[in-house]
Amino acid sequence: MTRLHEEEHPNKAFGWAARDSSGLLSPFNFSRRATGENDVAFKVLYCGICHSDLHMVKNEWGSSVYPLVPGHEVVGEVTEVGNKVQNFKVGDRVGVGCMVGSCRSCDSCKDNLENYCPKMVLTYGAKNYDGTITYGGYSDTMVADEHFIVRIPDNLPLDAAAPLLCAGITVYSPLRYYGLDKPGLRIGVVGLGGLGHVAVKFAKAMGVKVTVISTSPNKKKEALENLGADSFLISRDQDQLQGANGTLDGIIDTVSAQHPVLPLLGLLKSNGKLVLVGAPEKPLELQAFPLLQGRKLVGGSMIGGIKETQEMFDFAAKHNVKPDIEVVAMEYVNTAMERLLKADVKYRFVIDIGKTLKATS
Amino acid sequence: MTRLHEEEHPNKAFGWAARDSSGLLSPFNFSRRATGENDVAFKVLYCGICHSDLHMVKNEWGSSVYPLVPGHEVVGEVTEVGNKVQNFKVGDRVGVGCMVGSCRSCDSCKDNLENYCPKMVLTYGAKNYDGTITYGGYSDTMVADEHFIVRIPDNLPLDAAAPLLCAGITVYSPLRYYGLDKPGLRIGVVGLGGLGHVAVKFAKAMGVKVTVISTSPNKKKEALENLGADSFLISRDQDQLQGANGTLDGIIDTVSAQHPVLPLLGLLKSNGKLVLVGAPEKPLELQAFPLLQGRKLVGGSMIGGIKETQEMFDFAAKHNVKPDIEVVAMEYVNTAMERLLKADVKYRFVIDIGKTLKATS
Repeated sequence: MTRLHEEEHPNKAFGWAARDSSGLLSPFNFSRRATGENDVAFKVLYCGICHSDLHMVKNEWGSSVYPLVPGHEVVGEVTEVGNKVQNFKVGDRVGVGCMVGSCRSCDSCKDNLENYCPKMVLTYGAKNYDGTITYGGYSDTMVADEHFIVRIPDNLPLDAAAPLLCAGITVYSPLRYYGLDKPGLRIGVVGLGGLGHVAVKFAKAMGVKVTVISTSPNKKKEALENLGADSFLISRDQDQLQGANGTLDGIIDTVSAQHPVLPLLGLLKSNGKLVLVGAPEKPLELQAFPLLQGRKLVGGSMIGGIKETQEMFDFAAKHNVKPDIEVVAMEYVNTAMERLLKADVKYRFVIDIGKTLKATS
Repeated sequence: MTRLHEEEHPNKAFGWAARDSSGLLSPFNFSRRATGENDVAFKVLYCGICHSDLHMVKNEWGSSVYPLVPGHEVVGEVTEVGNKVQNFKVGDRVGVGCMVGSCRSCDSCKDNLENYCPKMVLTYGAKNYDGTITYGGYSDTMVADEHFIVRIPDNLPLDAAAPLLCAGITVYSPLRYYGLDKPGLRIGVVGLGGLGHVAVKFAKAMGVKVTVISTSPNKKKEALENLGADSFLISRDQDQLQGANGTLDGIIDTVSAQHPVLPLLGLLKSNGKLVLVGAPEKPLELQAFPLLQGRKLVGGSMIGGIKETQEMFDFAAKHNVKPDIEVVAMEYVNTAMERLLKADVKYRFVIDIGKTLKATS
């Protein structure tokens, strides 16, 4: 089997892969397709570690295919472009996010919402249109159709830019779509992790007032002083929540663990919007009355389209929105995964692929 | 006690009231306030029987105060106006819906959304600002501040106009607010009762294609032939639902009984909106993944503001939207309630107050 992975495509590649649901990653030789006429190939320099990588390496969503090379917050420098590529050239700073393909013809694709295309191809662990399995950014090289490549603006450091490709667009897109991006509005951000801390930064950059809602009282100082949030609520403190009832125009809820939504609906004003970007496995209990009585809604959002991802990068560059990251070496990835499971990171691990991924073959 | 009700206000009134949670209605002498300077008083001619009247007479929401005179789909002819009333005169055809008061100063009131005002005063069974209890339209007269009076356009029959005051605005408002009012869109209407059948008519008048979703196969002919729906799905037929997956831009869900929302979310396209206007007592089970994967939302809506109620009447008059009603005599009300409980009505009972309510004192 290992030889097959190496010989599947013409271009040798090297990365780290999980081999089974133990979730442990180890060095892995594989291959990438030749750079097609519409393709951009790039040397990977950094890759963020997303919480979903953790779910995938352990097959917690039941869809994992091994060997699995995770990573969908992939940035680097262009090394080759196909002869029909129009927007990129060798040396450009680029990134690939959660997807590397979509049908390009459905309603979602026509609306620049490739992320909702039923035939969307995930960046890793998915079957590509040629029948081969996609491999992610915990690897030395990447290749994708230029449609799925975004440009990293010059004034954004590549390492801090990486998490914007998933965490960033995941919170930016719903702020825009649900109209929670207007100066003077007041929103809540539930959960102060990889997604939540970027949500605070984007909302603040949009002129929106932000209340962080967290189970951890010890995140208060951090939220107010370092991230610039305007206020802080402990989600288990009923008195605090009661006192803030009816004060928020919207909430970005980043929490994937089971949690009650009724208190969150209470925090909303009339017409308020509770937007889920984390997906608890079990169904939420949704009371209808609070929705009716204030014309409130519970909506979802999942990453974002490529056009909007580029807009987000340009916005981040203009407003200096940068995720807080801890850069780690490739060899540290299993430890990083353990720490991520305990939420022991402020706020996103980024692997320094360029300097620390060493080929072993 | 009975004398108190008669002497509480200067103007004698007569209607039918429930005296306890048995829910049986019987004749009742009470009184109405003198017509204030901003008030419009009118002789009640017709009053619709709303499903919530049934809940209220039986105290099923736990908030009922007896004697309880139901009725919030009240139409009639103006008999007296206060000296500061600007928009109505004696003889005008008018109506009162679900509310007769609000604070007039909160954000909701300023936005013409009195229906979401925290101090909104319901038309019956609620404490008014003067401390007295409000009595509804199962009675010979009505009085309210002109702000809460709507004009019934000349070409709408008064009897068929009555249900628009609650059932009508309850479905019209979310069609507008959630953007489900654009020609060419395709929506679903769940439940073909008092609300549902008006939802079909309004949506069709807006140029929207309508799929009726019902538990009753025998409503198919009616929905397609008499109400003009474009298609029909049996909500318990998994194959039918599967076949219609991803086809609807929105759904107006009028069902108050417990029912699964997951199949309804499946019927929605990306960006689709499931709007609840009925309120099941127990929490719904809401899966997060289907919301995320298509950026779908579950929202609520409750009646509508006065300005929008007037707009709805004008729209109904222009497009000839008229609820299907069965006109009954006042003495028939207890039987009508029993039949309503069994959904044995097409589609709204309207009491002919003007001709059949006989004072017994």
